[in-house]
Amino acid sequence: MPPTDPPAVFDAHAFADPALLRQALTHRSAGAPHNERLEFLGDAVLGLIVSEALYARWPKADEGSLTRARAELVRESSLAEVARRLAIGERLTLGPGEMKSGGHRRDSILSDALEAVIGAIYLDAGFEACRRVVLPWFEQAVSAVPASKVGKDAKTRLQEWLQGRQKPLPQYELKSESGEEHARVFVVRCVVSDPPAAGEGEGGSRRAAEQVAAAAVLEQLESGA
Amino acid sequence: MPPTDPPAVFDAHAFADPALLRQALTHRSAGAPHNERLEFLGDAVLGLIVSEALYARWPKADEGSLTRARAELVRESSLAEVARRLAIGERLTLGPGEMKSGGHRRDSILSDALEAVIGAIYLDAGFEACRRVVLPWFEQAVSAVPASKVGKDAKTRLQEWLQGRQKPLPQYELKSESGEEHARVFVVRCVVSDPPAAGEGEGGSRRAAEQVAAAAVLEQLESGA
Repeated sequence: MPPTDPPAVFDAHAFADPALLRQALTHRSAGAPHNERLEFLGDAVLGLIVSEALYARWPKADEGSLTRARAELVRESSLAEVARRLAIGERLTLGPGEMKSGGHRRDSILSDALEAVIGAIYLDAGFEACRRVVLPWFEQAVSAVPASKVGKDAKTRLQEWLQGRQKPLPQYELKSESGEEHARVFVVRCVVSDPPAAGEGEGGSRRAAEQVAAAAVLEQLESGA
Repeated sequence: MPPTDPPAVFDAHAFADPALLRQALTHRSAGAPHNERLEFLGDAVLGLIVSEALYARWPKADEGSLTRARAELVRESSLAEVARRLAIGERLTLGPGEMKSGGHRRDSILSDALEAVIGAIYLDAGFEACRRVVLPWFEQAVSAVPASKVGKDAKTRLQEWLQGRQKPLPQYELKSESGEEHARVFVVRCVVSDPPAAGEGEGGSRRAAEQVAAAAVLEQLESGA
């Protein structure tokens, strides 16, 4: 990723209340008002911005895949990397102890400060404005989530999981079909022999029920792996 | 809390795209499109709405207190309670299996559906509109967070923690005072004898440094308790 010009990035939002930015860049070690409360808020703001971006970018990903992808995007080391691109470390105010021990280069301090900056922008300008500034910092990472993790449906992912381990493919069996013409309900059972696992799914079509059953089996296999 | 008239609550937002509401009220057991992806999104929307409300309501609470209060407000049983007030269970579409086993009364299904409804409103109308609808569902719970948990500063909470256990009060000791006239730095050490714990804090005033030191000690005591 090409380095971003730091002043330009911060200039992406001109603070109506510059004290908010100052607070966001003040570590607890430098005394109050420090950035911990803003970090609490910014963490939630960032969670929504990233969640929505993943939701829109990967329309077929199920909840579990989206949750895993989000955790990866907002984990400390990922946030610290973004903070470094924005040169946040150079602008941090630290207490003398943290300063001496190189706190402005530490992942935890950088990641917290980035969240605090996001919280400060949110308070200063509201959600939409904050998203406009923050989303570009994460867009490349959102697009770079491997399709194998989020872009595929459950049947495909189950098949790949088994093939990758040279195991036999799953069997799908229609257990029942019921309901009125306009509201049929299909129940499908998905069975995997090695490792042994099985799950049922219901759906308005046979294919939909297979997807639900495959997701249930995949969940068992992934949690047991 | 008086029961809220369910249609009125849902009428608080008239969906431009009613299919979103239908999807939010469709459990996975009833087949696709179900509400799991909307739940992923709604969880993040709700996280921000509740975080901001706590942040504004408790201006002195530290990050740890806010995080604990948020976890309590959005835990499954709390969300299920809100879902019951909104009579979401009655409007859920479930598969026949879940229907028979009383799924529309289950905390996990109700809580997920509530989050999905919030995600659907967000997609339908944006963050500000969604907050206007959703915040009233949680305002009473936000106000009901006990002040003892979030409303007090670290020194007060440390004192109460020790008094509650009939332990001696903490000692604060000024370790150093340095820096220019306009940027003094105070370092204070807080020592507790029983259970033994100590921590240092820096601040722009003696009082601010004491707060930071008390918070450090409180964290040790609470994590060790």
